[in-house]
Amino acid sequence: MSQSRDPLFSDPIAFAAALARLPASDTASRNAALARQARLTKPAGSLGRLEEIAVFMAGWQGCERPVLDKVQAVVFAGNHGVVARGVSAFPPEVTAQMVANFEHGGAAINALTRACGADLSIVALDLDRPTGDITREPAMSIEDCLDALNRGAAALGDDTGLLLVGEMGIGNTTPAAALCAQALGGSPRDWTGRGTGLDDAGLMRKTAAVTAALALHGPACTSAFETLRRLGGREIAAMAGALLAARLRRVPVLLDGFIATAAIVPLAQENFRFTEHCLAAHCSAEAGHARLLERLGLDPLLRLGLRLGEGTGAALAVPIVRAALAAHGEMATFDEARVAGEHAQ
Amino acid sequence: MSQSRDPLFSDPIAFAAALARLPASDTASRNAALARQARLTKPAGSLGRLEEIAVFMAGWQGCERPVLDKVQAVVFAGNHGVVARGVSAFPPEVTAQMVANFEHGGAAINALTRACGADLSIVALDLDRPTGDITREPAMSIEDCLDALNRGAAALGDDTGLLLVGEMGIGNTTPAAALCAQALGGSPRDWTGRGTGLDDAGLMRKTAAVTAALALHGPACTSAFETLRRLGGREIAAMAGALLAARLRRVPVLLDGFIATAAIVPLAQENFRFTEHCLAAHCSAEAGHARLLERLGLDPLLRLGLRLGEGTGAALAVPIVRAALAAHGEMATFDEARVAGEHAQ
Repeated sequence: MSQSRDPLFSDPIAFAAALARLPASDTASRNAALARQARLTKPAGSLGRLEEIAVFMAGWQGCERPVLDKVQAVVFAGNHGVVARGVSAFPPEVTAQMVANFEHGGAAINALTRACGADLSIVALDLDRPTGDITREPAMSIEDCLDALNRGAAALGDDTGLLLVGEMGIGNTTPAAALCAQALGGSPRDWTGRGTGLDDAGLMRKTAAVTAALALHGPACTSAFETLRRLGGREIAAMAGALLAARLRRVPVLLDGFIATAAIVPLAQENFRFTEHCLAAHCSAEAGHARLLERLGLDPLLRLGLRLGEGTGAALAVPIVRAALAAHGEMATFDEARVAGEHAQ
Repeated sequence: MSQSRDPLFSDPIAFAAALARLPASDTASRNAALARQARLTKPAGSLGRLEEIAVFMAGWQGCERPVLDKVQAVVFAGNHGVVARGVSAFPPEVTAQMVANFEHGGAAINALTRACGADLSIVALDLDRPTGDITREPAMSIEDCLDALNRGAAALGDDTGLLLVGEMGIGNTTPAAALCAQALGGSPRDWTGRGTGLDDAGLMRKTAAVTAALALHGPACTSAFETLRRLGGREIAAMAGALLAARLRRVPVLLDGFIATAAIVPLAQENFRFTEHCLAAHCSAEAGHARLLERLGLDPLLRLGLRLGEGTGAALAVPIVRAALAAHGEMATFDEARVAGEHAQ
């Protein structure tokens, strides 16, 4: 943690400037990793996406044989004024109750980060001060949005080799749907789903809320910052801040579900290279996620029907990244093992 | 290991008798696990297939909160007379070379079992004595097939909580395709693929070999044993023996790729309940695997484009099973965490 540093984003212009000058992954390291893959004792390409992950990690770590020590998971929590529109099956008090559950180690993300060997921290963002109801006003003031972005950025640990962000916020699939519809088009109904278990009437209220928010804010969403500020939420902006801070330090990230992926939509709209350091960990059962991943060009590693958030899908993908690096780093080459290659008969 | 015991299958009749009386998973434990899932601090069903895996493991372990200590992986290796028909891109010497690579720890399965915390053992079956060329004669004598089944069964460890079987055998996608076509129908071409990297001419030779083997042996394949003996191979029969031995002891298994899945096809044809203790770990990129899983009613946990065998896909799924049990066993209930339930507003 590095919360005593100066805020990474002093104002919206600094945020836009950071987003405009994203570092790239290292081509020479990627090529060296590709060449190594071709020498390992297996038919060419036979480890499928594990090979792709190894090359991806090589590019971001800047070395032929990347290693992964510290995996960091952060769950950001926020509350949403739009819950007054009846868009969730759970009452808003559950956000704080679940934060307490995280802190006591009893939630799914606690079990799954323990299982995959990731460090977990929780950042609750002003839960007693919900964002504005996006059907009537911007979710956040400029100051509040900057604060959320900076608290997200500050959560990135100094020695993190792979970052996972998750979220908790009753009602937050509604702003997530609004962010998708604003940036990617389509009808609000394309992006709304049942969240934690909404009934038909609730789903109609939710779709109406997204429609109203787009009508009110659409014309003013002229930058990633303004889109996040008007249609997002504190935990959503914090995830965006953390994921941008990771990119600035060339730390690769595992994207979790619909809301975590929606948090990068305004950033990817402003700079299409933003997704380059992102692996999509899984495809959620929440309606809009498959569509969203496809629009971002991200092929999820897992499809296990999860729809919980908290970073749970990202945690499940950590062992796949570790396995990819283990195979890449530890396997013998054809020469080392004296194994005959293809067509050597 | 328990190789000093009497063979599990004294003759083909004993094998058929074992297959006819398969133990079932425990319904009361499954129901208790389902009830526990409904009380955990998450929306109902939101952990998707993790919930299904926890209930599956509860049923086979016979307790509400299953735990997983020892995961055992066994790679069986065999050589195939049918390679004389030009059905593989690699020479048959590679089977023994890869066994040496496994024993020195340099293969993909070594890295992946280390990464997932599984014990690995290697069983090489008479590599200097390839099976008969199935286009001209049965793969094995009755004695050789029984020996392979028993060596498979003997490999199951006393304290194994989850079994993975993998294979290595240059040319073994050809007998695997023959087993599928014999038991499940369709044309030989439906079940043949490029294996380790066969070219078009090789693929035609392979399809012709499967066609010839079916014409020669089809009418005599009147039991799981005869099908395995005539069309299979030593490592294939050994996998079948290990997976049946696991079922007899209520040990759940993770199926690997096309060849490991094909090994159970004759068993599932003789007793359709055979697949009940099997989780399909992944869907291989080998052409017939997706079709085979669908025909067996198995939904793979992973789709990562692997086509290596060795048990690699099964090893990748181990952390998912561990994660499912961690969430199931460690999460707080709504009551314990004092979290309000759905519609509690």
